[in-house]
Amino acid sequence: MAGPKGAKAPVLTPQSEDFPRWYQDVVAKAGLAENGPVRGSMVIRPYAYGIWERMQAAVDIRIKAAGAENAYFPLLIPESYMRREASHVEGFSPELAVVTIAGGKELEEPVVIRPTSETMVGEYMSKWVQSHRDLPLLLNLWNNVVRWELRPRLFLRTTEFLWQEGHCAHASQDDAAAYVRRILDDVYADFMVSELAVPVIRGRKPPSERFAGAINTLTCESMMRDGKALQMGTSHELGQNFARAFDITYQCADGGVEHCWTTSWGVSSRMMGGLIMTHGDDAGMRVPPRIAAVQAVVMVVRDAEDGSVTDAARRLLAELIDAGVRARLDADVGTGFGRRATDWELKGVPVRIELGPRDLEAGVATVARRDGADLAEPKASVPLAGLALTVSDTLEEMQRALFERADGFRRSNTADVSTVAEAVEVAASGFARIAWSKLADGGEAELGRSAITVRCLVTEDGEPAPGDDGPGIIAVVGRSY
Amino acid sequence: MAGPKGAKAPVLTPQSEDFPRWYQDVVAKAGLAENGPVRGSMVIRPYAYGIWERMQAAVDIRIKAAGAENAYFPLLIPESYMRREASHVEGFSPELAVVTIAGGKELEEPVVIRPTSETMVGEYMSKWVQSHRDLPLLLNLWNNVVRWELRPRLFLRTTEFLWQEGHCAHASQDDAAAYVRRILDDVYADFMVSELAVPVIRGRKPPSERFAGAINTLTCESMMRDGKALQMGTSHELGQNFARAFDITYQCADGGVEHCWTTSWGVSSRMMGGLIMTHGDDAGMRVPPRIAAVQAVVMVVRDAEDGSVTDAARRLLAELIDAGVRARLDADVGTGFGRRATDWELKGVPVRIELGPRDLEAGVATVARRDGADLAEPKASVPLAGLALTVSDTLEEMQRALFERADGFRRSNTADVSTVAEAVEVAASGFARIAWSKLADGGEAELGRSAITVRCLVTEDGEPAPGDDGPGIIAVVGRSY
Repeated sequence: MAGPKGAKAPVLTPQSEDFPRWYQDVVAKAGLAENGPVRGSMVIRPYAYGIWERMQAAVDIRIKAAGAENAYFPLLIPESYMRREASHVEGFSPELAVVTIAGGKELEEPVVIRPTSETMVGEYMSKWVQSHRDLPLLLNLWNNVVRWELRPRLFLRTTEFLWQEGHCAHASQDDAAAYVRRILDDVYADFMVSELAVPVIRGRKPPSERFAGAINTLTCESMMRDGKALQMGTSHELGQNFARAFDITYQCADGGVEHCWTTSWGVSSRMMGGLIMTHGDDAGMRVPPRIAAVQAVVMVVRDAEDGSVTDAARRLLAELIDAGVRARLDADVGTGFGRRATDWELKGVPVRIELGPRDLEAGVATVARRDGADLAEPKASVPLAGLALTVSDTLEEMQRALFERADGFRRSNTADVSTVAEAVEVAASGFARIAWSKLADGGEAELGRSAITVRCLVTEDGEPAPGDDGPGIIAVVGRSY
Repeated sequence: MAGPKGAKAPVLTPQSEDFPRWYQDVVAKAGLAENGPVRGSMVIRPYAYGIWERMQAAVDIRIKAAGAENAYFPLLIPESYMRREASHVEGFSPELAVVTIAGGKELEEPVVIRPTSETMVGEYMSKWVQSHRDLPLLLNLWNNVVRWELRPRLFLRTTEFLWQEGHCAHASQDDAAAYVRRILDDVYADFMVSELAVPVIRGRKPPSERFAGAINTLTCESMMRDGKALQMGTSHELGQNFARAFDITYQCADGGVEHCWTTSWGVSSRMMGGLIMTHGDDAGMRVPPRIAAVQAVVMVVRDAEDGSVTDAARRLLAELIDAGVRARLDADVGTGFGRRATDWELKGVPVRIELGPRDLEAGVATVARRDGADLAEPKASVPLAGLALTVSDTLEEMQRALFERADGFRRSNTADVSTVAEAVEVAASGFARIAWSKLADGGEAELGRSAITVRCLVTEDGEPAPGDDGPGIIAVVGRSY
């Protein structure tokens, strides 16, 4: 009989040995995704896609609460659109995929596959926005985009990825700035903390790290288990750059005509990579219960001759579903229990409920928490009566515990430093916080030589810096994905 | 004051005058969609996208109930994949969009934008399916596809469209046939009838109308208000064609190795066109309540000086939302009431609740059903107390009424005929039903000369024909989109 020990056979490269290899192993062995045939593309398998669907739903509800409406814009953009905003085309042209033949003929004007839709949406905003009464115009698109990546990596940096891109037009810079911040706080950070159990630093990107075409980029940065940063989502003020390029103007109440202030903001399937690398351990993924497509699996350890264990497991499954738990049955007794337990661990299902003939006789089941490695008692024998409620409580407890563990990890791997040399040392294994003014004269470039970047600028209160300069601004620096 | 008469100013070309123009007018004036800059592409605006989101949710829940799991496969397919199944490439190659440049370089092998994903999924199925225990493999993808259309038309035939494509592998032809039928009946027809209030004929496509690569295509065909047919969804048996081309095999229980039997099935954003053309009238769209993103709009006709009408409208809105009605407020009293009423009619919002100062004094509101033109009493004065419940009942009644009207229209425009000449006559304005055997010797071609096609083959009981030939098979013929 495989117990907890058997379930922890070293199927993955340990994190401490080779973190990138560990990540690659988890993605493959937990059946999350595979490389597509075209370089850098990705097949997302059902288990991971189920988590993505939950991410979409949880982000979507927050986007709608922030007043934006969903719409759809075309995949194919005339090449000429891309050229209208100078820094935008400069940023994106090396990454474009270009369609030159369609319907059996060479196209007169080549079209590009959208790398992002500012230009396409800008063209339509200029038609739809006439008066101050049409503002703000708050749109959001769920779609796929293509950016030709030189060093692709599943979920983290793929040639094609899934995301939402918000695009809004506002009447004033203040409105634009407030909305960009609202999306960062109420949509992205709230979602990441509450649902993904991923702690994030909300900050302002330094000019060197801004989106191509933006005057201000706000970001949510999180720390992975190897101490590197992952940019989890960004929210951009585009100033009047796109409004000028696409002639997005409105008539004011006093009759004058002004250019709009536009914004854009996005989170993507990259968050799946962040989820894996924030919570995963040497046994695989650990999915926070709120975002888990499968929260609990009822495993028949082995059945009795009369099938009574599977019957009882089915009843338990129904009770769990009635109690609002997203549960699944594993009655595949033809496969060894140890192997099945290892597979569920790899997939990071929060709770396993193991039921065998002797358990059934005793009226109990064994409940194993996926974050058991952090606990004194990873497994508990729980009476079948009332088990569904116990599992509900366990899921809530585990959601909190995963967040706290990740938050503790981040805190203990972040240090305040006062010189660039110290920052380089700290950033070898985590984040360094240094006065932004200390990086003014070549400090950013010096960090760059050790592959360290300024992840974001924050105030002493931990809020995004209100500007690119000013007193008291702290730079959070680290290596990154 | 604009009453029902004012609300019916002829903003649209009447259906009887020019149906295609009417359709074009509705799509533009109700703010549903616009042409994209690249020929045949489409911008879906929020109001229509909200309906599409409801369609997706209602189809998705049925797909999951049928046991399929969602996944994601790449947009870009190596050209060589397309060539592996002969009739598939023959059918799709004229419509392909080809990427030849990416990341600033000419690609060694051009890649195509997926027109459908049989080939891409086939490649992975061959890896994932090893044993009979891996079958059936039931996958579904929600995505966008591109087919270069010569005569594009918003929603109905666009270069890029949104859809779901199911792709499954089965152990036997019987399993494949049963699943294809289950999707047709339990997912597509049930969704169309119950949610869209669109009556459909479920039938088998004649060999001439099959999907490129299929051995059997089942279809849901519906009749538009001009008597033409729209193919609303299809479900294909692919036989072992793709299994052979992509080497999808499995080991049987007895140790032998067999090719799988694969299937694919899809419904798309084209259904939005079907919805418009099944229910719309000369005043615009009529959206069945179940699929409506906005089921009821509370309109402030004009406000009192103290703002009491808007306050009462807000209370009413809250009551409607509490009663489960998807309601919205229109308190835009700066715009004329007649114009606003016309706009909501154009958009086809099922119920308008009109509230003015005198209504408020009398403790009533005027409730107008969007299908009022079919009724003796299109508007009713309803007490504010209990109005939310009345509206709920009205919405249910209207869902039924729209289905019955569409079903009655279809029945009265369908006739049994016994000669090809009669079929041509009847199909000028509806569907003709003729013995399939009568079309054996050149009959299909003769119909074709009048732009009439065999929409599908059915049995005398109205079920899909079990085969391409056989006694008692009836061909349903008509003009089509």
